[in-house]
Amino acid sequence: MIKGAHSIAAVILTIGDELLIGQTIDTNSAWMATVLNQAGISVKRRVAVGDDWNEIWEALTVEGKAADIVLITGGLGPTSDDITKPLLCEFFGGKMVRDQAALDNVIEIFTKKLNRPLLERNLKQADVPDNCRVIQNKRGTAPGMWFEKDETIFVSMPGVPHEMKGMMEEDVVPTLVNRFKLSPVQHRTLLTAGIGESFLAELLVEFEAALPKDYKLAYLPNYGMVRLRLTGLDGTKDAQGIDDLFEELKTLVKEHLVVDQDLTLQETIAKVLLEKKKTLAIAESCTGGYISHLITMLPGSSAYYLGGVVSYSNEMKIDVLGVDPDTIAQFGSVSIETATQMAEGIRKQTGADYSLATSGIMGPTGGTPEKHVGFVCVAFCSAEQTSTTTFQFRFDRKRNIELTAAHALDFLRKNMG
Amino acid sequence: MIKGAHSIAAVILTIGDELLIGQTIDTNSAWMATVLNQAGISVKRRVAVGDDWNEIWEALTVEGKAADIVLITGGLGPTSDDITKPLLCEFFGGKMVRDQAALDNVIEIFTKKLNRPLLERNLKQADVPDNCRVIQNKRGTAPGMWFEKDETIFVSMPGVPHEMKGMMEEDVVPTLVNRFKLSPVQHRTLLTAGIGESFLAELLVEFEAALPKDYKLAYLPNYGMVRLRLTGLDGTKDAQGIDDLFEELKTLVKEHLVVDQDLTLQETIAKVLLEKKKTLAIAESCTGGYISHLITMLPGSSAYYLGGVVSYSNEMKIDVLGVDPDTIAQFGSVSIETATQMAEGIRKQTGADYSLATSGIMGPTGGTPEKHVGFVCVAFCSAEQTSTTTFQFRFDRKRNIELTAAHALDFLRKNMG
Repeated sequence: MIKGAHSIAAVILTIGDELLIGQTIDTNSAWMATVLNQAGISVKRRVAVGDDWNEIWEALTVEGKAADIVLITGGLGPTSDDITKPLLCEFFGGKMVRDQAALDNVIEIFTKKLNRPLLERNLKQADVPDNCRVIQNKRGTAPGMWFEKDETIFVSMPGVPHEMKGMMEEDVVPTLVNRFKLSPVQHRTLLTAGIGESFLAELLVEFEAALPKDYKLAYLPNYGMVRLRLTGLDGTKDAQGIDDLFEELKTLVKEHLVVDQDLTLQETIAKVLLEKKKTLAIAESCTGGYISHLITMLPGSSAYYLGGVVSYSNEMKIDVLGVDPDTIAQFGSVSIETATQMAEGIRKQTGADYSLATSGIMGPTGGTPEKHVGFVCVAFCSAEQTSTTTFQFRFDRKRNIELTAAHALDFLRKNMG
Repeated sequence: MIKGAHSIAAVILTIGDELLIGQTIDTNSAWMATVLNQAGISVKRRVAVGDDWNEIWEALTVEGKAADIVLITGGLGPTSDDITKPLLCEFFGGKMVRDQAALDNVIEIFTKKLNRPLLERNLKQADVPDNCRVIQNKRGTAPGMWFEKDETIFVSMPGVPHEMKGMMEEDVVPTLVNRFKLSPVQHRTLLTAGIGESFLAELLVEFEAALPKDYKLAYLPNYGMVRLRLTGLDGTKDAQGIDDLFEELKTLVKEHLVVDQDLTLQETIAKVLLEKKKTLAIAESCTGGYISHLITMLPGSSAYYLGGVVSYSNEMKIDVLGVDPDTIAQFGSVSIETATQMAEGIRKQTGADYSLATSGIMGPTGGTPEKHVGFVCVAFCSAEQTSTTTFQFRFDRKRNIELTAAHALDFLRKNMG
């Protein structure tokens, strides 16, 4: 675990039955961990418990002793399975009172924004223990609560991600940084592609062995790419030390380096396209719109992304992209030849500088003795060149789609030059 | 928390620094929780710790006392930050030995599948404590390990999702069900749309109050839709009790019912399209391929999904979808009129029975005094009708895209009839 000499330790405690029956994937904790680390607060552990009085009480007791800060999310909704607030009131020995600012907020949200009648259970959302500092919720009805007990800070926030994030960014993190006079931990991150985690580790054996004790290197593999994160644990040092080590690391992995910043592959591509003032269009068959989605999730993507075609049927490949029916008949819709014509077709259709096309078999069905599930053809096209590549993945449908997208984007990046 | 009278309790323990610095979103735990609940094992809590000897040791000690089963994932990779295996060996008082079957597996994967040289650190993956039952890994190099100590079962599995899932499905869950003679907990799930969580709760006050003590109702809101999960905790009972209660619940929410099964909206749509033998095509602007992606993630979607166009630029709307340039000039690209022509255009272009189109402003920029960030136009088109609707969302780009997709799919579902 990442922990500096004088580091402040936090525990993230999430509350809700939905976390224990698998209905909800907890994305809040990862976001909170990132923000806390950046602020120089290490996360000691993460704990999730159900809407159960004894379990929550025990977790507050145990984690309160283990950490300087316990950040709690969830359990503050208006439905009857929520018991967190009365429990917190009793745990910290308070008395429930209605908070006027929180009440005004609930009334405003219901009458002005939602235009819905106010129910008593909604008004109750403005009730808070009288011994907490109330954190007003600008994005929802449930207020946050800041308690202190035996030198530990406990902050309770709603589980709705954007409400929690707003409170963290605008109140909780700045207050903690100020209170503990924190110097942020320093991170330098780079992204590699085309080399497995163990080979990368082999390449970096000496670098890791020689790393000063205040530094740590983490391997973060994802879809055939490995992110390397170098962390300087002592935030009071100047940046020279970590910058020098990072330069050394970059040199060691230079053949596999995608980008020397904490960017995703699609962010890296966006950066290049913007710098070169080039445009992109995509023809997807097997990835079904996923690559387009990854690109258009970035704000401002309309500056370089013209659009795409999801040509799931052969007719769409022929009618919209201008693929020759004979090519499909002779080589099949999953072939280098078809992918090439798809890439050339979308480029011609849209006038984009660069185009990318995917065609493959994602499974679980559709494989043949010649072309197995997980076989993918990718084509790139520009004014100067057309290039193609193939992959054979061996996973389930979801992962095959994700891996195809990652590898196709990396192929695009390399070919854009 | 969901717990029957004689229920077996598990703790899910995830290991890895990446979980505490926010680089990884933990999807394993949710999947494991679902599978365990279905098997009749309740999850008491979930704990995530870093690659830190003391933290892992303490977690094993504490959680081993709290639960019947501790399922551990992560910390078994080939890189040097992985300390889990030697720790488990010491914790359970074993001695490290090389397992022949695991070694054969590592060699086969490297020489036959990956065609890569074997490194010593890869061979070490076949080392296991001599007091565990080895669970062979059919999908990767790190074997699983089954320990027992003081009447608690500890199972260690790799963190790679499809490797862990394979071990759970093929070995761990069947072995646990057999060992504890489990009768699965019974679940009935339905999906509602167009009604908020608090209003739904208001509608169901009496139903919930009258619920027999062996039953529990959970509200699971997601993107403006609320899933209701009715759980019968005593798995030894026959299905009549839960079926009767579920019928009552369905009647109470019938105006808002999307589907009375544990299906997503896109699965519900797929079911209807297959039953009616109808086809679908989609023209997306603001959602950028995300709706297409949701639909094509389902295996077999090529049977009813012809494809789509991501018309991010106006030129693509005009050239590919046949939108009238005058319509865009007069009403704007984000307008009912443009969305209508997009839906009609993609339907004509592809010959699909049904089509759907989205155009909107997802932010953070692009809003105007007349059309704010989060404003979306959606159109549906079939041989019989064209229908449109608009939404105004007030979130960040990611959530606006997700909400638009969910509401557009619900609009499609309603109009397909």
